[in-house]
Amino acid sequence: MNLIVLGAGRVGGAIALDLAANEDLDVAVVDLDPVALELLEAADIETQVVDLSDAHTVARVVENADLVVGAVPGFMGFDTVKAVLEAGKPIVDISFFPEDSADLEQIAAEAGVPCLVDCGVAPGVSNMILGRLEEQLDSTTYFECLVGGIPVERTWPWEYKAPFSPGDVIEEYMRPARMRRDGEEVVVEALSEVEQVHFPGLGTLEAFNTDGLRSLLRNCTTPNMTEKTLRYPGHAELMNILRSAGFFSSSNVQVASGSVKPRDLTEQLLFSDWQFEEGEPDMTVMRITVDGIENGEEVRHTFD
Amino acid sequence: MNLIVLGAGRVGGAIALDLAANEDLDVAVVDLDPVALELLEAADIETQVVDLSDAHTVARVVENADLVVGAVPGFMGFDTVKAVLEAGKPIVDISFFPEDSADLEQIAAEAGVPCLVDCGVAPGVSNMILGRLEEQLDSTTYFECLVGGIPVERTWPWEYKAPFSPGDVIEEYMRPARMRRDGEEVVVEALSEVEQVHFPGLGTLEAFNTDGLRSLLRNCTTPNMTEKTLRYPGHAELMNILRSAGFFSSSNVQVASGSVKPRDLTEQLLFSDWQFEEGEPDMTVMRITVDGIENGEEVRHTFD
Repeated sequence: MNLIVLGAGRVGGAIALDLAANEDLDVAVVDLDPVALELLEAADIETQVVDLSDAHTVARVVENADLVVGAVPGFMGFDTVKAVLEAGKPIVDISFFPEDSADLEQIAAEAGVPCLVDCGVAPGVSNMILGRLEEQLDSTTYFECLVGGIPVERTWPWEYKAPFSPGDVIEEYMRPARMRRDGEEVVVEALSEVEQVHFPGLGTLEAFNTDGLRSLLRNCTTPNMTEKTLRYPGHAELMNILRSAGFFSSSNVQVASGSVKPRDLTEQLLFSDWQFEEGEPDMTVMRITVDGIENGEEVRHTFD
Repeated sequence: MNLIVLGAGRVGGAIALDLAANEDLDVAVVDLDPVALELLEAADIETQVVDLSDAHTVARVVENADLVVGAVPGFMGFDTVKAVLEAGKPIVDISFFPEDSADLEQIAAEAGVPCLVDCGVAPGVSNMILGRLEEQLDSTTYFECLVGGIPVERTWPWEYKAPFSPGDVIEEYMRPARMRRDGEEVVVEALSEVEQVHFPGLGTLEAFNTDGLRSLLRNCTTPNMTEKTLRYPGHAELMNILRSAGFFSSSNVQVASGSVKPRDLTEQLLFSDWQFEEGEPDMTVMRITVDGIENGEEVRHTFD
């Protein structure tokens, strides 16, 4: 079976290595960055330097694949999945793209191939847990996903670093967050409803609303669903302050020394503060809570 | 006796009103802004709309004065005092200008007229208190001035407003602060050594280093001298964070949407947040502490 992984980043690379451990699979990986491919070449995985931003190129590289794994950056995720489907290939995708995945259903149906999106950690593992419990329990009443990637070492003042551009993080802090409460979809502000959550062995983190439920809102029936992002305590307050003062605004501001979108400047200034050192460890923390009725009894399932 | 007040702002206007209450004095006030002069006209004080940024104009308006009071904004304070001295007139000045007032001594000496600078609240009242105690006590060992202007109402997130441009405040937070410790002048970072200070009836404020000793370092002999700015707690941390991240930097930063000095943008964004509402009350809080020996005993004099 021929498998091709699109994107050799932190996640795509790990997926390729895991898949290649199965000798029944022929795994190939493509990426724009030859450096990202080096580690995979060393593991005897077939690699190819390719720019996936062009749909024709995507169609060409997936030509002989039986299954495609999508692991490109979020901003190009939707277009890549679309190109794969239009090339008639099934895809499992982990990219966190801003577009609505429902728009891919028609394309997948026309191509007659399965398309699984939001298959990362969250959305991804979180979706599978809720899907499984909706099947398994008599009924589910509440779903909560707390999730975040944070550096192990806490450095003043942000106590946060990102393996991607600060712009993607700021985008997450600006986008209205869709939740479900008492069966109704409600929209709340990102960075709102900050609460402290204790993780044994790790300490106290904070959780705040972000827009992460995505396809769960369409595909799951649990009447209360919440997604919150985890950070070290204090981060949300700083982000709220910068947002409130206008530092995340995308409207041009004219001052004596020039004109700029404040958000562009903020991204630029945060870039070095938020960048991981070479080899610096990070961690992903996730807690899923599902309440429901099982064999007639109220139950709570928690996954850390 | 003919007195002329240069500047009809919050302080200059009050000085003019106080002086005019003395019927032996002929008081006149000049300012660029006719609106600022209206209140004084109503109090039967002679006023004149004049642009004081030109030295010849200054010389002309002070021509018939026996004594000049300088109350222009800090950025034009030094030049205004200089122009008055060169016109051969004595001046008492309250403007907080960045230049070194020692550079005015030679000019005043040549003109043969007295020149009293730093005669505001702080520097000003604080200087007079220390000067008086250095005269009165056997010796003084420690001088501390804590001072700040703050709004009465505390509003998230800054809990601060300024009756002048945020740029002047940021300038104060960037300038290295000169202190005297054990007889030696030391330079510390602005916004450093934050401590909490309690004021009965007002609550807890915070104090941090700023460069406010100025002429005290030259004219007073007390071996330990400290000046700190007062704000509501938390303000220094936010300012430290913005400064550390580069939002106060005066170096141009190029981003996709343009090029700008971050400090210009920050001033612009903070401007509306930091502006007092029409008629909104502010307050000036000051605590002077002087330690010394009086009649052979250790004493502490405190003035709130």
